[in-house]
Amino acid sequence: MPYIELPVGVPGIRGPMVFSPETARPLNELVNVLLQANAHHPDSTLSEGERELIATYVSAKNDCFYCQTIHGAVASHHLGDEDWSLVRSVKDDYLNAAVSSKLKALLTVAGSVQQGGKNVTAEQIDLARTEGATDRDIHDTVLIAAAFCMFNRYVDGLATVAPVNNPDFYRNRAAIISTNGYAATDIT
Amino acid sequence: MPYIELPVGVPGIRGPMVFSPETARPLNELVNVLLQANAHHPDSTLSEGERELIATYVSAKNDCFYCQTIHGAVASHHLGDEDWSLVRSVKDDYLNAAVSSKLKALLTVAGSVQQGGKNVTAEQIDLARTEGATDRDIHDTVLIAAAFCMFNRYVDGLATVAPVNNPDFYRNRAAIISTNGYAATDIT
Repeated sequence: MPYIELPVGVPGIRGPMVFSPETARPLNELVNVLLQANAHHPDSTLSEGERELIATYVSAKNDCFYCQTIHGAVASHHLGDEDWSLVRSVKDDYLNAAVSSKLKALLTVAGSVQQGGKNVTAEQIDLARTEGATDRDIHDTVLIAAAFCMFNRYVDGLATVAPVNNPDFYRNRAAIISTNGYAATDIT
Repeated sequence: MPYIELPVGVPGIRGPMVFSPETARPLNELVNVLLQANAHHPDSTLSEGERELIATYVSAKNDCFYCQTIHGAVASHHLGDEDWSLVRSVKDDYLNAAVSSKLKALLTVAGSVQQGGKNVTAEQIDLARTEGATDRDIHDTVLIAAAFCMFNRYVDGLATVAPVNNPDFYRNRAAIISTNGYAATDIT
């Protein structure tokens, strides 16, 4: 049961977002820019699916069920990963997953950010650069990882609820997000 | 030296905010709502100074020098704590600091959020409520703590630079923030 009175039947982060629309607005804008607005950055080489994989990986490391499941579903939607096997392999063992060497290097950076900002090393950044990451990619990776350290704590720190054993809930929601972007008002 | 090319002479989080104005906009809006817009919430009992203390405490636990120093300076500005002794005591030993029992209970919640969302317990929430915290206060405490787990990682994950041994830099900046709010474009 959530620690504060939240609307019933609104899972995960969307409960607190309905409770507090003043903060939901910038939170949704942030996640839309970071995860969806790839076309706004000519110097970015990260696809929407790759951005969602970074968000999913960090959420898994933070053990946030709602975030890793919904962002995993959105990543799978973008990447044509219908049985979620690619997402699962990134969460379990990204160095051996079927993703680019560049994304592996950026996932290493994201994993360090999850542990704490000072865990990122110059060697990790150099490797990402060698594999083709731009300044924009490094910036976005650090901020996506940092932002999900916030979102995960917001979701679990208030003890929000989320559907379990119901992958279709997340698949359906992922399709809506992929079309409309992230918006707290879209309660479906 | 920062890991990506940032404007010279723009310390802490403001470097990446100049690099990426698209994300700076929602980040500044978020922190303004959380730390400054107390008057927007009739059901909030937390002052601006108390909100800044929560941000400072979490930033200290995350060992983020820039964030704990600037938000400590803003807290001191709001609270008339000219020699920063109150802020220092909150960071070092908040249970014995000269703050309310309600704020102590909320700082315990914030400290749990910093460790990870699932570390917050029903007992911690119950104690905060017994001491007078509202649902809004609990919500805002969790989100302030979560948000600074993001800001701290953004600042240190990119290895930004910040003035050291220069408390007046932070005092002057705190006075500007207290008047104008948080804005990336205010490069002073």
